[in-house]
Amino acid sequence: MTFPPEATLADVGEFALIDELTPVFASEDAQVLVGPGDDAAVLRVKTGHVVVSTDVMVEGRHFRRDWCSGEDVGHRAAAQNLSDINAMGGRARWLTIGLAAPPTLPASWALDFARGFADEARLVGATVVGGDLTAADQVMVTVTVIGTCTVAPVLRSGAEPGDRLALCGRQGWAAGGLTVLGRGFRSPRVLVEAYRRPEPPYDAGPAAADAGATAMVDVSDGLVADAGHLAAASGVRIDLHTAALDIPEPLHAVASALGADPVTLVLGGGDDHALLATFPADATLPPGWTVVGEVLAGEGVTVDGEAYDGSPGFTHF
Amino acid sequence: MTFPPEATLADVGEFALIDELTPVFASEDAQVLVGPGDDAAVLRVKTGHVVVSTDVMVEGRHFRRDWCSGEDVGHRAAAQNLSDINAMGGRARWLTIGLAAPPTLPASWALDFARGFADEARLVGATVVGGDLTAADQVMVTVTVIGTCTVAPVLRSGAEPGDRLALCGRQGWAAGGLTVLGRGFRSPRVLVEAYRRPEPPYDAGPAAADAGATAMVDVSDGLVADAGHLAAASGVRIDLHTAALDIPEPLHAVASALGADPVTLVLGGGDDHALLATFPADATLPPGWTVVGEVLAGEGVTVDGEAYDGSPGFTHF
Repeated sequence: MTFPPEATLADVGEFALIDELTPVFASEDAQVLVGPGDDAAVLRVKTGHVVVSTDVMVEGRHFRRDWCSGEDVGHRAAAQNLSDINAMGGRARWLTIGLAAPPTLPASWALDFARGFADEARLVGATVVGGDLTAADQVMVTVTVIGTCTVAPVLRSGAEPGDRLALCGRQGWAAGGLTVLGRGFRSPRVLVEAYRRPEPPYDAGPAAADAGATAMVDVSDGLVADAGHLAAASGVRIDLHTAALDIPEPLHAVASALGADPVTLVLGGGDDHALLATFPADATLPPGWTVVGEVLAGEGVTVDGEAYDGSPGFTHF
Repeated sequence: MTFPPEATLADVGEFALIDELTPVFASEDAQVLVGPGDDAAVLRVKTGHVVVSTDVMVEGRHFRRDWCSGEDVGHRAAAQNLSDINAMGGRARWLTIGLAAPPTLPASWALDFARGFADEARLVGATVVGGDLTAADQVMVTVTVIGTCTVAPVLRSGAEPGDRLALCGRQGWAAGGLTVLGRGFRSPRVLVEAYRRPEPPYDAGPAAADAGATAMVDVSDGLVADAGHLAAASGVRIDLHTAALDIPEPLHAVASALGADPVTLVLGGGDDHALLATFPADATLPPGWTVVGEVLAGEGVTVDGEAYDGSPGFTHF
């Protein structure tokens, strides 16, 4: 079923909306003994490492409804959280969603959001097991993801001088798309779509863990900023090599139109949810990983051996 | 450390605030291998049932900053989620917090919130393992709680005709406090405090599970509304016996001052997070539980055998 386009959450009501949302999240996961609807979901978990992360997305800060459809926001909210588990070398399994929204929100937007979210989660075999729906002045989506690891989780703190720094996944594309949207344009379409629906390299995290990655982070604050998180947690210096960064053709076009340096978009961008990891010098990198720098003694992040004076990424407040 | 009373989140900044919040959530839990600060927390989990629930609280809808301190809101946010695990017969173990707040929020409020939250979680030995902090137009708190069960979780769906309905914990006190605050008063103080800091009967859930409870729910929407959830999930009728309900003396005083019936506050109130459960006729009720009704064939909720025409509780939108 689809709600009439003009129907709001207030028109439809909390319980009718929940009745429509629940089947969107139907699951075949035999470890989910009880899904949404009781006081809590019940999962059958096996002994091992469980990884848990939570992220909040707020309308007007993390997304705009005129730039992204409900489905897009669903994909992005799921991707952002699935990516955190990817960055531990784990497999995302179970998700909860807290959705706060104005009573005037079109009910169809909420349903589209749920469909996009469920579709993205399905890419990795993850399941929505619970949620909460409430009224607020703006749309806010809080997702918690629970994952499992078959090998030890890869933390941010294990990088050693002599390790190689490697990147997997698109980087800078979403930042290009956001820049374009911010100027009122809708093309290059491939960049705008990259912003609306990131394509994190979901298999790359467990593969990196298997290959002996010493530290890993997902690039969500910005490449320089997240390299900085690795450096700080590991007590090392990280040097990024810009010549090794892949600058996609449309990003050259955008930068040229704006009179900007495309490398800046790649160094400061975060919304692609690429993975950044360090590997011992003698490790074989899994497919899709490219060496983009090195780990040195010291602290902080340098770019081609120099201090970086551009924006490292995004900060709140 | 405490921030100067006039310092806002914008003054203090995201990273300084996180630096202050992290030690508030320091934990001795040996199963928490990695707490806040990496892409995800890492937990060592043993084979068994894991229960997960999430709840959203929005300023102006679920709390007002002029009615509750930051510490109060922290206690309430934790209690609401811990209570969901209690209602499964489980033990709450790990929590994540998504906090969205205006840049103008006093930083001391956020710190007070964290302290209240951590204090409430400590009552049951639960630990905050992760979180996210972002800017928004109003304060919104989303909590996810993960618990473990030593016996099978008690669902809402197991009540059978012939079972007794029993209640544990204060019921109607918080509704009395909210009513008083809504009229601009601050007394009776015991009711206002019950609203600000509910005291859910945290040991009662596992005890009820051990005693063979057939169905259980925490009273968060309202006694009649939540009895309705049990009835619907179990496919039975539930009859509430008002003569068995404990009406605290200050609630009589409030109702008398308002010309209202105190039983209405007990039947419609939800913020105390009492537990409502059904037990087989021959089960011995654990300490603290009082029989307040019975399970019959049929559907819906009746009060003293009659249809109830008062407000069953709260609905969103």
